[in-house]
Amino acid sequence: MRTIRLTLEYDGSDYHGWQLQPGVPTVQGTVEEAVKKLSGEEVRLRAAGRTDAGVHALGQVASFETRLALPADKIRSALNAFLPKDIAVLEAEEAPPSFHPQYSAKEKTYKYLILNRPLPSPLWRRYCWHVRTSLELEAMQEAASCFIGSHDFTAFSSSGDEVHSSVRTVRESRIEREGELLTFWVTADGFLRYMVRTMVGTLVLVGRGKLPPGQMAALLSSGDRGRAGPVAPARGLYLVRVCY
Amino acid sequence: MRTIRLTLEYDGSDYHGWQLQPGVPTVQGTVEEAVKKLSGEEVRLRAAGRTDAGVHALGQVASFETRLALPADKIRSALNAFLPKDIAVLEAEEAPPSFHPQYSAKEKTYKYLILNRPLPSPLWRRYCWHVRTSLELEAMQEAASCFIGSHDFTAFSSSGDEVHSSVRTVRESRIEREGELLTFWVTADGFLRYMVRTMVGTLVLVGRGKLPPGQMAALLSSGDRGRAGPVAPARGLYLVRVCY
Repeated sequence: MRTIRLTLEYDGSDYHGWQLQPGVPTVQGTVEEAVKKLSGEEVRLRAAGRTDAGVHALGQVASFETRLALPADKIRSALNAFLPKDIAVLEAEEAPPSFHPQYSAKEKTYKYLILNRPLPSPLWRRYCWHVRTSLELEAMQEAASCFIGSHDFTAFSSSGDEVHSSVRTVRESRIEREGELLTFWVTADGFLRYMVRTMVGTLVLVGRGKLPPGQMAALLSSGDRGRAGPVAPARGLYLVRVCY
Repeated sequence: MRTIRLTLEYDGSDYHGWQLQPGVPTVQGTVEEAVKKLSGEEVRLRAAGRTDAGVHALGQVASFETRLALPADKIRSALNAFLPKDIAVLEAEEAPPSFHPQYSAKEKTYKYLILNRPLPSPLWRRYCWHVRTSLELEAMQEAASCFIGSHDFTAFSSSGDEVHSSVRTVRESRIEREGELLTFWVTADGFLRYMVRTMVGTLVLVGRGKLPPGQMAALLSSGDRGRAGPVAPARGLYLVRVCY
């Protein structure tokens, strides 16, 4: 058996997220189907991050085991021939049997796009969160910098999350503006469920003047989910890359 | 009767272009339908440029005559309420009866996006031309500068084009690269049919080394449609703005 590691780009708009679910299109199910068409095998894909419905990926990493004898780059082009246009295999590589896309990952980077203008945009409608009210960039930048470091992110997780530890180490957390478009970049050793989208929802509260940036550190250390902002929409979120 | 001038953004992916055609969705037909829902009138919209099937707009200008008594900004929000998400009215303004979106226009700006990398992109698939082979930016920039000035653009028009004059004055014609994305910007007092897309098709020949940039001026003055490149795909083209 060989282990193949895939780097995937996808438009998550028309999928019920990464994870396999019966009766609805998922990214995992679609890629597993493509592998089956290629090799006849019923494989089970593992992914670096199980992106939620509507979330996009520029560099998701997934792996599977196969008896296929094809060179890895041929696997890439063959899978692309079987995949729909909204999913692409950017790379296919040989990986050691011990490779696990999630547990072997050292860091993941997400970006989140906000379109900040009075009117919605037909061209961006599937790819960003449209926020009408003017956002104060500097306050958001100050608040975003509070996420950097090792913190217990319970206040920014989904309430139903059951994990051993909610401590994550954030290395990069910054916002930049280019015209009407704000991009939030965040890199960490791991993320809790809804963590990035809750960070964004809270940063938007700051940008709208509803939460002073100086209160972000206290909110974080409170561990109180009720004090953070709403979960920002999935369509603005992109899994950018996974580092091993 | 009042004349209302609209500025429109749209995602052209799911439309058979601007111009009304029976039995298929068009941008013109969809906006006329929204006006009818608002005012009960059967209006006829006029546009600055009749964009082809799949072409997008960030700032198309259109106008219509109406007996509606609503203030222009209310017309904007009411039309947006009736329009699908892939078309938006960005502005609605009062215009003089003599206003004609096409004939009153002084200049139009288009941009064209090329994704230049080996593999196609799921996220960009509707919004750019994917060119696999590596493109030489400097050669394309040299060739693009040849379009600036007043020229007879017969070599860059559709063969069936019947117009009084094929002379157009191009003020801006430049290409920039940002990572894998090339953007061609062109501003002129008017455009022949398929002119921008033929310019792009020809610039890509230059970028691939199939046409020396030094031959662009001669190609232009030859007026020979057979010597220009192919018409680039519609999905990379955006009508950016119209100046009056």
